[in-house]
Amino acid sequence: METYEEKTLNRKTIFEGRVITVHLDEVSLPDGKTSTREIVEHPGAVAVIAFTDEGKMVMVRQYRKPLNRALVEIPAGKIDRGEQPEACARRELEEETGYVCAKLTHLVSFYTSPGFCDEILHIYLAEGLTKAEGRHLDEDEFLDLLEVTFEEAENLVKKGEIMDAKTIYAWQYWKALRETGK
Amino acid sequence: METYEEKTLNRKTIFEGRVITVHLDEVSLPDGKTSTREIVEHPGAVAVIAFTDEGKMVMVRQYRKPLNRALVEIPAGKIDRGEQPEACARRELEEETGYVCAKLTHLVSFYTSPGFCDEILHIYLAEGLTKAEGRHLDEDEFLDLLEVTFEEAENLVKKGEIMDAKTIYAWQYWKALRETGK
Repeated sequence: METYEEKTLNRKTIFEGRVITVHLDEVSLPDGKTSTREIVEHPGAVAVIAFTDEGKMVMVRQYRKPLNRALVEIPAGKIDRGEQPEACARRELEEETGYVCAKLTHLVSFYTSPGFCDEILHIYLAEGLTKAEGRHLDEDEFLDLLEVTFEEAENLVKKGEIMDAKTIYAWQYWKALRETGK
Repeated sequence: METYEEKTLNRKTIFEGRVITVHLDEVSLPDGKTSTREIVEHPGAVAVIAFTDEGKMVMVRQYRKPLNRALVEIPAGKIDRGEQPEACARRELEEETGYVCAKLTHLVSFYTSPGFCDEILHIYLAEGLTKAEGRHLDEDEFLDLLEVTFEEAENLVKKGEIMDAKTIYAWQYWKALRETGK
């Protein structure tokens, strides 16, 4: 099977921000022609599926500036430089929700939008939740903590308040767990 | 419940490409302080879950420059200016796979990475596939067509060749379809 590899002929770095870096690559295509690729570099992120003892899923509601609206999402955050994804998952869960967990299991990792961006998202299942001292949000982070039942989550999906890739994954995971135990 | 709205105080457009536009917004936070938000604008995209008469899922293998590797994905593509998502789904399915479908059903729409990007992805189920004249790829598009069984898809997930948000969604959808019929 062909790899259709695209070789970088030239890279122009357009922007280096706090979160993303943007490059414009000139590439050689498999047929020898050249094209450009717009590339967003991202440090990667983690997200956590966490159930309380009562079987509710822990979620956060926060304003998302790119959409100019709020979404309900599972707890998540960017990986710090040099941080291991599992450590990031524990940190973000505690910072955003005030929960610490006894056990963390890796469920899946996926690229959010590989056509233009290298962001990889690692999703963990957190079990054995206990309340820590409290939340420690970033200075520019404002969010509400929610603990939702299955029916409430279903309603949030229907209303379009749950509408991002990682939380739709969490929703599919929860449905499968209830319906098949897997 | 608070909306935690962030008002745009100033917008600096950093880059306007063929695919993405990048802005740096200065925003006012709910506590009155200011911060910056890095924002990637994207035209939105569609993806298609399509099964052949033999019950295989139609997939494409293509090189993804941001990752410097190939992935196996469900057929997908960006929405053209003014194009309706459903029309885009039919167009991308035919262009990338050579299949036309009798019936198209909207399954889900989600934001791929709402922390920094407004991209929305619409996923459709295509039924009643028939072969059209052939594929019509974009000039800078090179991909292999695959028709995979459930076991082959499972293996591609295990090997990390299926590893993007939309195709992981498709994989969860397929598993649920087989296990619960839903």
